[in-house]
Amino acid sequence: MTRTRFASMDCPIARSLDRVGEWWSILILRDAFAGMTKFDEFETSLGIAPNMLTRRLQALVKEGLLTRRRYSARPPRYEYLLTPAGRDFRPVLTALIGFGNRHYAPEGASVLYVDAATGQPADPVVVDRISGRVVAEPEFQLVAGPAATASTRARLAARAARLEAQRAPGEAS
Amino acid sequence: MTRTRFASMDCPIARSLDRVGEWWSILILRDAFAGMTKFDEFETSLGIAPNMLTRRLQALVKEGLLTRRRYSARPPRYEYLLTPAGRDFRPVLTALIGFGNRHYAPEGASVLYVDAATGQPADPVVVDRISGRVVAEPEFQLVAGPAATASTRARLAARAARLEAQRAPGEAS
Repeated sequence: MTRTRFASMDCPIARSLDRVGEWWSILILRDAFAGMTKFDEFETSLGIAPNMLTRRLQALVKEGLLTRRRYSARPPRYEYLLTPAGRDFRPVLTALIGFGNRHYAPEGASVLYVDAATGQPADPVVVDRISGRVVAEPEFQLVAGPAATASTRARLAARAARLEAQRAPGEAS
Repeated sequence: MTRTRFASMDCPIARSLDRVGEWWSILILRDAFAGMTKFDEFETSLGIAPNMLTRRLQALVKEGLLTRRRYSARPPRYEYLLTPAGRDFRPVLTALIGFGNRHYAPEGASVLYVDAATGQPADPVVVDRISGRVVAEPEFQLVAGPAATASTRARLAARAARLEAQRAPGEAS
């Protein structure tokens, strides 16, 4: 019921959450980026129940983020590989790594990206590829796209009005 | 049980997922970025059951991503505001918007960021703030940080070996 409601939301965040599935799916994608391909590898890494892992892998294949390939005919054995769409999930994981390191690693980072050429720790930030500027309000604004429904347009208008009022609190009611 | 296991994982992604909670929490943060502060606003936006919303808001306050402030003494009324840590979740949402628009909006984007100065659609990408280069392997590598445990170091070493073997498939067994 919840899932259906998410999918029907005219919002790219809600749709992504609906399709990626749940926490396990994100951790499976994480492990796929770490080069894991075999059922046993994911199972050992995650400590997940086999039936749950089967369901999550099937869902990720159905959603087009992983592809299932037979690598042994006898006995039949399969591996799971990131599709191009699956590979495109990396920025979400990178953003989560940055967030987790900044806020939930009081003892210091346990894992971080470094520049392979210089060894310098990376400071991941989401920018606009064209202008190179950080994508955040008010420099960037969330607007209706070509496929926005009337309700999404109304929602975005209300959003802009709220944020505008909060930026000029003297004028807000 | 699952949650405990996530928290104990020495991984910033797993920890973030553990702390942010679940899908509802991410959508509540989304709405907080959209300027919503009141219980009724979140309830209407999300179509979430009140008891569930109460639990998710309490969890987000406990995790330090929202703060609860009384804005009316009689009757007592509260609003929920993003903390600096909550505001820092924006890159994850921006990455999800980009992912959702690219893969789950076959009819076109319904919502997108535009440059407020030029009106040009933004193309959000995760780069290293210092070098400006996209944070992805092999240009960047995931390495052990100062707080990495022995098991995390072993995990990262295995990860690097797998990825190296996959980049040189002729040399892989």
